[in-house]
Amino acid sequence: MHFMTALKAAWQQRNSLLCVGLDPDPARFPAHLQGRPDAIFEFCKAIVDATADLVCCFKPQIAYFAARRAEDQLEALIDHIHAKHPATPVVLDAKRGDIGSTAEQYAIEAFERYDADAITVSPYMGRDTIEPYLGYDDKGVILLCRTSNPGGSDLQFLEVGGSGGEKLYERVARLVAEEWNASGNCGLVVGATFPAEIARVRELTGDVPLLVPGIGAQGGDIEATVRAGRTADGGGLMISSSRAILYAGKGEDFAAAARQAALATRDAINAHR
Amino acid sequence: MHFMTALKAAWQQRNSLLCVGLDPDPARFPAHLQGRPDAIFEFCKAIVDATADLVCCFKPQIAYFAARRAEDQLEALIDHIHAKHPATPVVLDAKRGDIGSTAEQYAIEAFERYDADAITVSPYMGRDTIEPYLGYDDKGVILLCRTSNPGGSDLQFLEVGGSGGEKLYERVARLVAEEWNASGNCGLVVGATFPAEIARVRELTGDVPLLVPGIGAQGGDIEATVRAGRTADGGGLMISSSRAILYAGKGEDFAAAARQAALATRDAINAHR
Repeated sequence: MHFMTALKAAWQQRNSLLCVGLDPDPARFPAHLQGRPDAIFEFCKAIVDATADLVCCFKPQIAYFAARRAEDQLEALIDHIHAKHPATPVVLDAKRGDIGSTAEQYAIEAFERYDADAITVSPYMGRDTIEPYLGYDDKGVILLCRTSNPGGSDLQFLEVGGSGGEKLYERVARLVAEEWNASGNCGLVVGATFPAEIARVRELTGDVPLLVPGIGAQGGDIEATVRAGRTADGGGLMISSSRAILYAGKGEDFAAAARQAALATRDAINAHR
Repeated sequence: MHFMTALKAAWQQRNSLLCVGLDPDPARFPAHLQGRPDAIFEFCKAIVDATADLVCCFKPQIAYFAARRAEDQLEALIDHIHAKHPATPVVLDAKRGDIGSTAEQYAIEAFERYDADAITVSPYMGRDTIEPYLGYDDKGVILLCRTSNPGGSDLQFLEVGGSGGEKLYERVARLVAEEWNASGNCGLVVGATFPAEIARVRELTGDVPLLVPGIGAQGGDIEATVRAGRTADGGGLMISSSRAILYAGKGEDFAAAARQAALATRDAINAHR
């Protein structure tokens, strides 16, 4: 799969900008899955199968698997998505960031071991930390830019050199647009809680896809996010929702409840495309 | 183990500022270990047992294990270090960075699953991304500050707001010194290729421990590093060397060769303390 091609096809053919984030927390699983050794896989698989036709991508968050020694269930989950929903790209949310030979190992982890179609990466260590990922032409590399958490401003909102009052997150966006995205496989993470900054990143980066967490549980505004971030053709966004969809239901019908929540979110997004 | 207490004890009692980085690359293992399913563990265990009395800490780099589906060997390795070398702290080099409930999962991964004594973390997402790690009082949290790679300057060397010409890496150092290190469990990563910047970080942060990669294979100057970064009592530094020690020998005596390389590096460091 070529990540960017598959993402654009999903935006159009499925008419969806919704990304379902897979952050499995066993404490919140329905009772009938509690205690099963493969509970994480079974929970996520049910969510995936119930929502795949409604999304432009899935985004498993690796920390939830690693904290529970469940890397094998993450492998099985991504295998399942590729086998049963082959047109749906998988973004591995890992926020890795390292240099040289170590970055190469992380790229092997994400793209060869897990066979993810894209990975999230931190830009703090600069260009050569991105290069090992960019070396995989068909994969996506989605860099942290402006994050939706309270401390996101500690560094990202600092004004950096020069006269224009450019902020650090704007510099990251500009580095991507002007230098790092030469192969067209970069994206950026911009939180939904800052629509003005989504608009600024869109202005700086043309059609670069933006991964936007922070709607749902984190309170971001869907209308403002879509208006600020959509491209001229109504694409350009992976709007991520996790907990509001995963835990929409608490019983054996949790997957059906997740589907209803995903449908409502997709439609709320589409109302403003 | 309390990380900072153990680290200070190791600096004094073992008379060493050397950190051996465990970046196991099976392609470089001696022939007699090639092809063994537990080769990564056996290689690292031999290095650890041959060098533990010469180091202030060990630093396994998780990407090398994750790329090869060898998390179980990383668990076994850290268990081994705690069992056989209980006074030697383990820094898990993972450079994680995420927010809220996801950062909590990464902290569980590092401190509960692997039982590491400290972890490296990226500061790009700001204060609340550090807090879940800081919540473990006895653990160390070592933030990326000024890295030794070519692209390290892309962001870290940008001047950020205000009149003093403060650079981004200096702001990170100051945030740690003035705010994030309230419990005294923070450290900073500063590359050996920039001694003037090690000195600047030392000036800004008092006695905060600095993890310094980049000597050996990356060409950093030991004398300049020690003079710039040591504290008044001759401590304050974890000077990391990986490949120059791990692959000092190519045969069955690789561990003895690693010991000789570690001894020489420790002594070269101590010549300038």
